[in-house]
Amino acid sequence: MKETLEHKQLAHLKALMTSYETHLAAHGFDGVLIYSGHPHRHFADDQHASFATYGHFMHWVPLQGLDHSWLLIRPGKAPKLQLHAPADFWHLGTELPDEAWVDAFSIERVATPAPPRLPAGRFALLGEVDADTAKALGAELNPAALTQALDEGRVRKSDYEIACLHEANRRAGLGHRAAREAFFEGGTELDIQLAYLGASRQRESDLPYQNIVGVNRHAAVLHYQHYERTPARSHHSLLVDAGNRFRGYSADITRTWAGGDASDTFAGLIEGVTTIQHNLTKAIAPGVGYPALHARMHQELGALLGELGIIRCDAASAVEQGITRAFCPHGLGHLLGLQVHDVAGRRAADGTELAAPAEHPALRLTRTLEMGMVLTMEPGCYVIPMLLDPLRDKAAGGDIHWDAVEALAPHGGVRIEDNVLVTNDGAENLTPVI
Amino acid sequence: MKETLEHKQLAHLKALMTSYETHLAAHGFDGVLIYSGHPHRHFADDQHASFATYGHFMHWVPLQGLDHSWLLIRPGKAPKLQLHAPADFWHLGTELPDEAWVDAFSIERVATPAPPRLPAGRFALLGEVDADTAKALGAELNPAALTQALDEGRVRKSDYEIACLHEANRRAGLGHRAAREAFFEGGTELDIQLAYLGASRQRESDLPYQNIVGVNRHAAVLHYQHYERTPARSHHSLLVDAGNRFRGYSADITRTWAGGDASDTFAGLIEGVTTIQHNLTKAIAPGVGYPALHARMHQELGALLGELGIIRCDAASAVEQGITRAFCPHGLGHLLGLQVHDVAGRRAADGTELAAPAEHPALRLTRTLEMGMVLTMEPGCYVIPMLLDPLRDKAAGGDIHWDAVEALAPHGGVRIEDNVLVTNDGAENLTPVI
Repeated sequence: MKETLEHKQLAHLKALMTSYETHLAAHGFDGVLIYSGHPHRHFADDQHASFATYGHFMHWVPLQGLDHSWLLIRPGKAPKLQLHAPADFWHLGTELPDEAWVDAFSIERVATPAPPRLPAGRFALLGEVDADTAKALGAELNPAALTQALDEGRVRKSDYEIACLHEANRRAGLGHRAAREAFFEGGTELDIQLAYLGASRQRESDLPYQNIVGVNRHAAVLHYQHYERTPARSHHSLLVDAGNRFRGYSADITRTWAGGDASDTFAGLIEGVTTIQHNLTKAIAPGVGYPALHARMHQELGALLGELGIIRCDAASAVEQGITRAFCPHGLGHLLGLQVHDVAGRRAADGTELAAPAEHPALRLTRTLEMGMVLTMEPGCYVIPMLLDPLRDKAAGGDIHWDAVEALAPHGGVRIEDNVLVTNDGAENLTPVI
Repeated sequence: MKETLEHKQLAHLKALMTSYETHLAAHGFDGVLIYSGHPHRHFADDQHASFATYGHFMHWVPLQGLDHSWLLIRPGKAPKLQLHAPADFWHLGTELPDEAWVDAFSIERVATPAPPRLPAGRFALLGEVDADTAKALGAELNPAALTQALDEGRVRKSDYEIACLHEANRRAGLGHRAAREAFFEGGTELDIQLAYLGASRQRESDLPYQNIVGVNRHAAVLHYQHYERTPARSHHSLLVDAGNRFRGYSADITRTWAGGDASDTFAGLIEGVTTIQHNLTKAIAPGVGYPALHARMHQELGALLGELGIIRCDAASAVEQGITRAFCPHGLGHLLGLQVHDVAGRRAADGTELAAPAEHPALRLTRTLEMGMVLTMEPGCYVIPMLLDPLRDKAAGGDIHWDAVEALAPHGGVRIEDNVLVTNDGAENLTPVI
């Protein structure tokens, strides 16, 4: 794989330079200096928070976690990487891998975190840099139009990026299998998370987002942020929404498992949401509007809730009355890449803002699908009392079998999420069978 | 334990209020508003970095990780806690424990992260808050003199704080035992770290600092920042510098283990450094200057290097020539508490700055010891080529058995670190036998 990946990476870098040249010319810049960023220190402390290298920096440099470094891109010249490499016996220095991309860069190792001097000309400065630094460099800090254009250049993935996303998925898949095993062996949320990290070979701060490991009712907390350390008293369910990063590129996969105490309805819900996930993935193709897929998820969810005896109205009525939104308040998915919620999901290629539908404010992808986009497909269904309880006193409340909802509640909910590439005539699922 | 801890905590809060009343009066404030802080978002992303609640906030409120919350302290009134608790189905809300301290506070749960309005009077505002917010509140932002006084109030630990530090040590001890076991079973650095987290029941972002897990030469990188994922080819050594947090209070323990490929000299070095650690701990008492203990570490280290056949000069000469500093460039230890390198280590009780000795710039504790201080005792000895190589061409180089240094190098180094309480006539070791 290594050789093929290096070959693809060189092609990626070549195409990226062509793209940058076009955008720099269009916006009247002679070049752009991109800052990797650096970790923040906790207030009044000497310890640092976790850190993620800036996406546009990693679009060029595959060194996830690199900090205090600068990348200068100018048309017709090799990308110039100023690598922060002080003589420091406190930390292990950054070693460059023996890979072909290194030769495509002009690399200078320096002891200072300060930016390089810029040649004469008009330069943009991208990244988390303060205004004084930009002023001293004589560069324009994060100009909106250029940033938008470069964001757009990350939307359709190169073969190299697709290979990276594939590999991140493969590794995440190993983690998910270990997580499932840890759950069925009676592990707590913390144990499941550590089993995931061990099998996917990463530490917590390497993750593209904080894994969600929800046992029982915690599976209904959409961004559940803890890892329970004591064993649960029942084994209704496990929801794991967990990722991986390979060279900065993210996997974002969710699986839900029925435990020994799960009801048949819950098992049916997992099966049903999985089917919806498969159906919607089959509907992916260039030219398809993602909001339409999101709307179709709600229709199919309405039908499923009826089949399972959770509601008594038909799908159209369930959607109309906001019942399906109470069972699934999040969007069907989002773009995926160097950030887990990748850039430009709500902006058309021509720069037009594409707001989320008023009734679906959480939808992060509102574009028409194009070949080369990579996105998540993640239908879900949850018992969230804060959203369902207000329906009790409305007409919709009469269409809900509240006994069935109560019986489902201890399971939390279901989400099934794969990562999908839009191809020239359909979709390719990057997520392995788990 | 729970009941005793709650009792101690109430006494802690009472004494803390008395101390605040004194300092507020001395600095002419009617009260102080303390902000917990909040996690930072990665640049141009919607994901957040890890977070540590501000120390002065946790001095009162034992909810580690609490964010967007405010604490108002006024003489003669119960501490007022504005707890950020929005109606939010995305995250699990903060639940207050069924513990006595809750009744000692006036607690308001609010949906907004905005600060509470202040009563009339002169107020200080402490924490990571911007100048505009302070101005809108009419409060003085992080006034240096008051902050220093409150820092000083954290130096001598209450019985409650000592109990918390003890418990953090007990938990960290469980982790260290699991780490040792994982090493002897052939685990990689990542596996050792995950075993540590599992046994000490915490996630990476809960740690007071990023654990150092160094196999072989990595043991010589003082703040080694990675966790190798592939197995090492030899088993010379493992150095684990790893902690725990209990109610915000930190443990910070280091152990070093000889692997199957270790030399007798390295085993002797572990034994020798352990003996130095014990000797220096026995010398702790109120009135002892910490820099003198640090200096004594260098003398004993010089003697040990001679005994092990690594140098040929006597201890005094080894110190004089800077040889021991090349083998141990870090300080003997630091204050420990709500931060791993706790506040006011280099400032006397009267506010005088106590700079580190010019030859020992990394020494973080330069004070005279007082009863109630908790500190680390962590002598070490390493083969750091960046520091030793420059000695080769000096007179000191002739006093070093370079063959012995080369033979030691694959082991990296040794550090032995316990957490120690200064008592009325000596020291109590808070770290369990590992």
